[in-house]
Amino acid sequence: MSDATIPTAEAAGGEPIGPERTALADEAAGLDAADPLRAKRAAFTLDDTVYLDGNSLGALPRAVPPRLADVVAREWGELRIRSWEESGWWTAPERIGDRVARLIGAGPGQVVVGDSTSVNVFKAVVAAVRIAQQRGAHRDQILVDEATFPTDGYIAESAARMTGCTVLPVAAGDVPAAVGARTAVVLVNHVDYRTGRLHDLPGTTAAVHAAGALVVWDLCHSAGALPVGLDAHGVDLAVGCTYKYLNGGPGAPAYLYVARAHQPRFDSPLPGWNSHADPFGMASAYTPAGGAVRGRVGTPDILSMLALEAALEVWDDVPIEDVRAKSLALTDFFLRCVERYVPAGRVRSITPTAHAERGSQVALRCAAAGEAGEPGGAGVTAEAGGAGEVMTELVRRGVVGDFRRPDVLRFGFTPLYTGFAEVERAARVLADVLREG
Amino acid sequence: MSDATIPTAEAAGGEPIGPERTALADEAAGLDAADPLRAKRAAFTLDDTVYLDGNSLGALPRAVPPRLADVVAREWGELRIRSWEESGWWTAPERIGDRVARLIGAGPGQVVVGDSTSVNVFKAVVAAVRIAQQRGAHRDQILVDEATFPTDGYIAESAARMTGCTVLPVAAGDVPAAVGARTAVVLVNHVDYRTGRLHDLPGTTAAVHAAGALVVWDLCHSAGALPVGLDAHGVDLAVGCTYKYLNGGPGAPAYLYVARAHQPRFDSPLPGWNSHADPFGMASAYTPAGGAVRGRVGTPDILSMLALEAALEVWDDVPIEDVRAKSLALTDFFLRCVERYVPAGRVRSITPTAHAERGSQVALRCAAAGEAGEPGGAGVTAEAGGAGEVMTELVRRGVVGDFRRPDVLRFGFTPLYTGFAEVERAARVLADVLREG
Repeated sequence: MSDATIPTAEAAGGEPIGPERTALADEAAGLDAADPLRAKRAAFTLDDTVYLDGNSLGALPRAVPPRLADVVAREWGELRIRSWEESGWWTAPERIGDRVARLIGAGPGQVVVGDSTSVNVFKAVVAAVRIAQQRGAHRDQILVDEATFPTDGYIAESAARMTGCTVLPVAAGDVPAAVGARTAVVLVNHVDYRTGRLHDLPGTTAAVHAAGALVVWDLCHSAGALPVGLDAHGVDLAVGCTYKYLNGGPGAPAYLYVARAHQPRFDSPLPGWNSHADPFGMASAYTPAGGAVRGRVGTPDILSMLALEAALEVWDDVPIEDVRAKSLALTDFFLRCVERYVPAGRVRSITPTAHAERGSQVALRCAAAGEAGEPGGAGVTAEAGGAGEVMTELVRRGVVGDFRRPDVLRFGFTPLYTGFAEVERAARVLADVLREG
Repeated sequence: MSDATIPTAEAAGGEPIGPERTALADEAAGLDAADPLRAKRAAFTLDDTVYLDGNSLGALPRAVPPRLADVVAREWGELRIRSWEESGWWTAPERIGDRVARLIGAGPGQVVVGDSTSVNVFKAVVAAVRIAQQRGAHRDQILVDEATFPTDGYIAESAARMTGCTVLPVAAGDVPAAVGARTAVVLVNHVDYRTGRLHDLPGTTAAVHAAGALVVWDLCHSAGALPVGLDAHGVDLAVGCTYKYLNGGPGAPAYLYVARAHQPRFDSPLPGWNSHADPFGMASAYTPAGGAVRGRVGTPDILSMLALEAALEVWDDVPIEDVRAKSLALTDFFLRCVERYVPAGRVRSITPTAHAERGSQVALRCAAAGEAGEPGGAGVTAEAGGAGEVMTELVRRGVVGDFRRPDVLRFGFTPLYTGFAEVERAARVLADVLREG
């Protein structure tokens, strides 16, 4: 059932497939046949589109529609208010948190699901600053990964403003050199959303700890794609979304990890009633609950949350190490196909070659005419529009990645449902588009 | 199709229905026949349970399941990432906000849907303090309705701590006397969650403004039950949930109203990327969007949000004045039935008698033996457990309200789907339980 046997309209009507293409297609078929995760594709609703945007919105797991229909019709429609207890709604944030925990290397009782990533960044950074300042009031700086996904930076600025701190942007790789006695908290993305670069979580965490500060990791682009090892590496706090490699659905609730050792001092800036030790006591004084529950805020959005819970079932028998191995094989193979198929100089990968520095996506810059050594040629320029138009055409031809201004084509590889034949086809269609462009 | 024709098991097998009961049942049938909203009941999934807990979780609108199934299967499952644009996901928070706006007396462009009520209280109170302090840095007090639903108080304390203010609890009715030159913000519930008391929004707002402060109204227990008139009364900011009288589903996204005049100075403590003027520009510097969009934070939870959108369709042809008229008729009638049926002294309404002071619920205290003048009797005491046991038995007999410690039975009346015959039955079953208890 390999997609390699389905020629695209373009391939069918275009130039004959040469021996080099045939060799890569054959290799893809072999890799797919040997793939231990191959059967997982059937757990998702997919068509013959090559979907390489699971790093933005994961595909629909087949377990979700029937489960959500039951949540709506029976749990809400028939049991109504009784479902908060009888259907386990009230405890869903911790229960689902524990499911996410396994995928990011966290023991139970440390992850809670709810709110958006942005809101969780706020909780995590403010709470981390408060813990750091118990160690020393002079700790008044927040170091933020300078290439961060923007929301982390905006929220860190707000957290700094509201805790009397200053934000210092620093390259993620320079954190060990930059962290110091005035550092309260370091906020870093595990994988860069733009380049796909994987940052050194163990080394950076150790360096931050050596300086007496705390680290908050944003796992949006790593959770579900590679091992994270929060507990093993002694991470303090972490946040992430669930709608990328975890396939929880559009805007699915995010999560917050607070290491057990920090939980008693976790002092939330959003102490909503769901985080109270006795929420139905309706006391006017706030007494925080213990454990992960302390990271909750208001009433959880049950429909999105239980869709996520169903989506996570697909992971039950999947070792994250297998996912990582396949992810690297997919990105390696894509880079090889691009190198062979795409005319020289037309794209340049900004994703690291070294496995230790690569997440599960490949980002290609569409070179400007000058950079590509093709003066006046191409129509693919570094200006907004060039790469954007290439992506629009790719999507039209059934290869879905996304475009990040000004000139980046992003391709995400979801090992649970992406096959090698699809990867070969994506590179082939990209080459066609660039050659015709 | 009046439920009055369906005798409960208890009524059928119990004592004969006396002439007084018959008279009230007849009156209920007449009221139902004359009810202009009667047909709306068919828009909800209901059974022969008397559901008087719509002030906690609204019933399921029939429009929701097919719409949500389409969102999941087609918009997420087939279009995937393209739905952010093609299915209107990205603009859903403002679009649905405008639907809510009509129900709370707000013109378009001032309401945005998303996050929980608690998170929106934080945004609103912090932003309001910042606006107030532009008028004078000496404004360092936040007055909070002392009987508030707890989360508002907890969040206000956090907002105060993070803006250098102090929280002063004050009875909602005493706000006009308490507000002064040091007041930055007043946070009040429009309807008290426990007693069902409706506070004076126009008068309180005017008094707060006269003192140069801003007011934030929590509309959780009024939106969808009565006219609010935010624009007409010059309210500054407001928040509310959508899972009570608006029937948006468990934990459906909340909303934030920022009056147009304040929008340019609305300075969010949660400036997530969704509130950026150019979110896909991915700029490292934060530039807020104009209008209601500025109240957004992170990626909206689309499944819960589009379920809410479908749920709101039922309001399209409903004047909120009709809802209010029926709500008052329902609560009047319930109080009369309770007075006639329930043995003297066993319950006492803590919901105001005056229409101008009543929301859409009735709260009955189950009197302690001493208070009821029945020494040693009853088993219904003011201790936790007494009223709780009464509610458990009511639910078992198909009358669903809820219990608030230590001794309050809450009954919410949703004019869109609650009929008068149900109200009569609820009072009758309550009387049975108390008599047998």
